[in-house]
Amino acid sequence: MTESLYALIMAGGGGTRLWPLSRSAHPKQMLKLFGERTMFQLSVDRLLPLLPPERIFVVTAAEQVGPLAAQYPELPRDNFIVEPLGRGTAPCIGLGAMVLHHHDPNAVMAVVTADHFIGRPDTFRDVLRAAQQAAEQGYLVTLGIAPRFASTGYGYIRRGELLGRVNGFDYYRVERFTEKPDAPTAEAFVQEGVYAWNSGMFIWRADRILEEIRLSMPDLSHALEALAAVWGTLAYAETLARLWPVLHKETIDYGIMEKAAQVAVIPADLAWSDIGAWGSVMELHPHDAAGNVLLGDVINIDGAHTMVFSQGERLVVTIGVEDLIVVDTPDTVMIARRDQSERVREVVEQLKAAHRQERL
Amino acid sequence: MTESLYALIMAGGGGTRLWPLSRSAHPKQMLKLFGERTMFQLSVDRLLPLLPPERIFVVTAAEQVGPLAAQYPELPRDNFIVEPLGRGTAPCIGLGAMVLHHHDPNAVMAVVTADHFIGRPDTFRDVLRAAQQAAEQGYLVTLGIAPRFASTGYGYIRRGELLGRVNGFDYYRVERFTEKPDAPTAEAFVQEGVYAWNSGMFIWRADRILEEIRLSMPDLSHALEALAAVWGTLAYAETLARLWPVLHKETIDYGIMEKAAQVAVIPADLAWSDIGAWGSVMELHPHDAAGNVLLGDVINIDGAHTMVFSQGERLVVTIGVEDLIVVDTPDTVMIARRDQSERVREVVEQLKAAHRQERL
Repeated sequence: MTESLYALIMAGGGGTRLWPLSRSAHPKQMLKLFGERTMFQLSVDRLLPLLPPERIFVVTAAEQVGPLAAQYPELPRDNFIVEPLGRGTAPCIGLGAMVLHHHDPNAVMAVVTADHFIGRPDTFRDVLRAAQQAAEQGYLVTLGIAPRFASTGYGYIRRGELLGRVNGFDYYRVERFTEKPDAPTAEAFVQEGVYAWNSGMFIWRADRILEEIRLSMPDLSHALEALAAVWGTLAYAETLARLWPVLHKETIDYGIMEKAAQVAVIPADLAWSDIGAWGSVMELHPHDAAGNVLLGDVINIDGAHTMVFSQGERLVVTIGVEDLIVVDTPDTVMIARRDQSERVREVVEQLKAAHRQERL
Repeated sequence: MTESLYALIMAGGGGTRLWPLSRSAHPKQMLKLFGERTMFQLSVDRLLPLLPPERIFVVTAAEQVGPLAAQYPELPRDNFIVEPLGRGTAPCIGLGAMVLHHHDPNAVMAVVTADHFIGRPDTFRDVLRAAQQAAEQGYLVTLGIAPRFASTGYGYIRRGELLGRVNGFDYYRVERFTEKPDAPTAEAFVQEGVYAWNSGMFIWRADRILEEIRLSMPDLSHALEALAAVWGTLAYAETLARLWPVLHKETIDYGIMEKAAQVAVIPADLAWSDIGAWGSVMELHPHDAAGNVLLGDVINIDGAHTMVFSQGERLVVTIGVEDLIVVDTPDTVMIARRDQSERVREVVEQLKAAHRQERL
């Protein structure tokens, strides 16, 4: 049943939310945040019990193909799809859908991310299998995450009527997508019990998403049809370079999902996190009795509720500190109050303003 | 009048209180804690308006002669007196007195430290000039520091009758030396108004201190006489290597000063500190409006009452932190609560126990 199932791993991000470890040339998907495997390797690892490497595709930026392919030599080099520059998730997914549909007209594609944490990979594969069945009926299936708290950092999906049940998973019609809400709204959503976090992961038939792109984003659709016409020829690279930069940036949620027909959500408890800040990295690691997460060469004297994240040859010593996040890299050390780790954004802005490329 | 005045800089320390910057091969006197000059350079700088380099002597360990001489090439190499190993301040000063007395029978010697902070070098030189006059009358003069608070980290000197006044400085008979007191005792001392902190700096005639050594520490005196007899000959090194290790360790305060005759104190306000911990380094630097001391390549986002001490190529970023001391070195970063910086001692003990010589 999974013969026409493919994965499209979106691995083009260059975010700075985990600065100073993440850098423009070393984005989150290339980091070892949880042991010895990079986020990208973990993303592929999770899929391999379900799919052979030949059916795992990666869409990314040109300069990341080499480093990512080196991290996973088992993946066929032709499975790396290059986006000349990031135009948001709608063009990115559209390009992947074009390639997969060309490859296999019956392709069902699971769109997954390269830089998120999934604590329950077994459940993840189970839900992909279930979602495939709904997708084969024509549904655009989104993976909804059972909310663990009233997060203001995630988008929310409100579910409507129950559409069916596959392998123990219910899937529902989607009533509404909501962008990141304010705190009272998030609280109300969680109370209501019919909302899920929007994980940004989807399963659908490639032909179905291309059909929706045709209806809602005709410019993108024209570009994809032009590319499909030259796919595999010498004209492809030139056509891509010409058409891609003039596309306007759009997310799949806003550009397609909010307007599409047959949109479904499968709520699942995947112990998922988008790891939006160092605080999340800390939460996802086991803590010692004093609430510390000490990774690397660390001597801690009476510190509490503190994370030290160090991967180099350096020794980090903490004495009597509380509620800190310390990230040590060869050229930079960051020390942040635990609840303010997302403010690395401000540091990155300062570095950009000062043209300090060597730290970006 | 200053022609027979000499300085003896005690520069043999190997303390760990400023770890991780201070290391066994790089002790406090070699550190740049206040700008571009090392503590040793500042110590010599302070003396040069008063004394020519030829009359500045340094007593230190063999392995420190090279590095210290390199820091101050103006000092004659012969002015470096080597202690084979540290036996406390009494033998150290005794050795210096022997050398200076041999050099000049009328020598008055100012015993000063290489690793303390003196905020008022003009006053320091004024008090040395005044103390010389008392010393020439035979007094063993100690420099007492007007206490700024009830410190439990310093020894105290209780003054008795006024003995005289020179150049605006009163000097008093010393009634009692007290080791580091507990907090209520320190409080009472400061209230009483007749106590000074013991700076560990002294001025006396070389012959007078040698006389007191003869009376109170006969073993040391015999060793010094044996060394004086071979000074300048090939037998000196062998004699020193034979006699020095069997001396017992003793401080000048306990071994000599508490029993000696004609002991005087000159109270002075030198803005002095022995820099016993990183907290002192922070206090001695100017603070910004939020109470921060930010030294090196630092980006600080809303931090307060925090010191960052960084001398290398690394960037240190602080976000929302308070009351921290951060010391960054090429191989180690220490992050301590401001009031617990003296606990680096515990870290050093752990490193010793783990045989991590590369960090000691």
